[in-house]
Amino acid sequence: MKQAAIKSVTMKIIGEKINGTRKRVAQAIAERDADFIKDLAKKQAEAGAAWLDVNAGTHPDREPDDLIWLIDCIQSVVDTPLSLDSANPKALRIAIQAVKKTPMINSISGEPERLTGILPIVAEHGCPVIALAMDDKKIPETGGKRFEVISKIIKETRALGIPDSNLYFDPLAMTISTNTQSAMIAFETMRCVRDEYPEAHLTIGLSNISFGLPGRSFVNRYFLSLAMQNGLDSAILDPLDREIQAAILTSELIFGRDKHCLNFIRASRKGIFEKPAT
Amino acid sequence: MKQAAIKSVTMKIIGEKINGTRKRVAQAIAERDADFIKDLAKKQAEAGAAWLDVNAGTHPDREPDDLIWLIDCIQSVVDTPLSLDSANPKALRIAIQAVKKTPMINSISGEPERLTGILPIVAEHGCPVIALAMDDKKIPETGGKRFEVISKIIKETRALGIPDSNLYFDPLAMTISTNTQSAMIAFETMRCVRDEYPEAHLTIGLSNISFGLPGRSFVNRYFLSLAMQNGLDSAILDPLDREIQAAILTSELIFGRDKHCLNFIRASRKGIFEKPAT
Repeated sequence: MKQAAIKSVTMKIIGEKINGTRKRVAQAIAERDADFIKDLAKKQAEAGAAWLDVNAGTHPDREPDDLIWLIDCIQSVVDTPLSLDSANPKALRIAIQAVKKTPMINSISGEPERLTGILPIVAEHGCPVIALAMDDKKIPETGGKRFEVISKIIKETRALGIPDSNLYFDPLAMTISTNTQSAMIAFETMRCVRDEYPEAHLTIGLSNISFGLPGRSFVNRYFLSLAMQNGLDSAILDPLDREIQAAILTSELIFGRDKHCLNFIRASRKGIFEKPAT
Repeated sequence: MKQAAIKSVTMKIIGEKINGTRKRVAQAIAERDADFIKDLAKKQAEAGAAWLDVNAGTHPDREPDDLIWLIDCIQSVVDTPLSLDSANPKALRIAIQAVKKTPMINSISGEPERLTGILPIVAEHGCPVIALAMDDKKIPETGGKRFEVISKIIKETRALGIPDSNLYFDPLAMTISTNTQSAMIAFETMRCVRDEYPEAHLTIGLSNISFGLPGRSFVNRYFLSLAMQNGLDSAILDPLDREIQAAILTSELIFGRDKHCLNFIRASRKGIFEKPAT
């Protein structure tokens, strides 16, 4: 079945598939298999991704070259903006020269090094940026403390004139299997951001929440829906996952955001609620 | 596959299947097909229903007899408490003599006639009771107005000494297909009850929300999960529906209510996350 172009009403999806820490993508990068990357780019764009995440993997020496190659591959087939997924200011500065549209930067955090290295790039180029609710590589254990980190970050971004509306805070969803309160801590962080910084966005890397559990896709999809009720308006995920698409569109319908239910009904006609052929 | 005995952590399920307004059940009642009813009772009890709803259908003359027959059928195979689903005080007074355990009464509303006819039975027998957020057969259009009806009802129940903890308020989920705000109105009503009457329970008839829409089971299951986040702690639904069971257990896991994730992992071993054989 052809990938249906399913657009959410308000949720912005960052397509996660072009990530060099995944074995198959790492192989494609190493072998310069452009067709493989182009295919991932096209499919995610067709599925409605607002950004395509680009992660060149974990080889610091090769990262700038690999990133440029990936960007060229992707931009040769789609014009979806990119999310440059790197903690390396040098690689980011090079990559940003290669992109056709203003990219998202993924990511900063409360770590001073990442702030001083990356924030100036964000400010200079007017990029949206993902900011993780963690500090010096430690993840605070309560929602209140994660919100403190976020407040520290926002002080820095405001000082540089970065508008709150360019910030995508990731409250960090750690797996429920080691702490049953993980989702609730993330939700609390989200509600604090919504209350205090209404212009800022919320995003989440979806797959960690279910690590080590059975029925992972169930945990992921309900967590996503419930997070949307706490203000989540963006997520890093696999836009080709039909169950995830259904979770997003159904949640938006329930929240009363889908005028005349048209988006939902249209997606239904495209087969989103049908069981995939097995 | 045998129906797995899947128990939720906090959600109380009212099994909806023995309902004489459904064609197949009406036929079983008319033909006194006890095996059919017993099978529905056993399966719902095994699936973890806290109550079994018993609705004898829409023939006022036959209702008391049919109700007694149903109750006898059910009680011959399971000891799950019943939810007597009737607006007819006469039928309820007769039925209540036949039940072995204190039944739930389904339902009262703000209609004065139903209040004066049924509340004394509820008070006298110490029954839990479902109370619909509607008045004189009209369903208020806003959450605030539905909450006003609920407040009127609770004044009456308190005057009769009925504890708030025996009340199960149904905020009424009307279909999203005719009003895209339907779910949000129900959620607002729920939050008002949670804030103002913390001892009272919240319940919902699950199937209306998706009437007239495609992908109904998706709407039902995400609505249920999102309603739980607004305080829903009970629902009238099909306890045999594996997708609904998964929605409940996954939501409870995410809300941090499932100690060591044991309930979720146990349900997974029983196959709840597997696709049913087709």
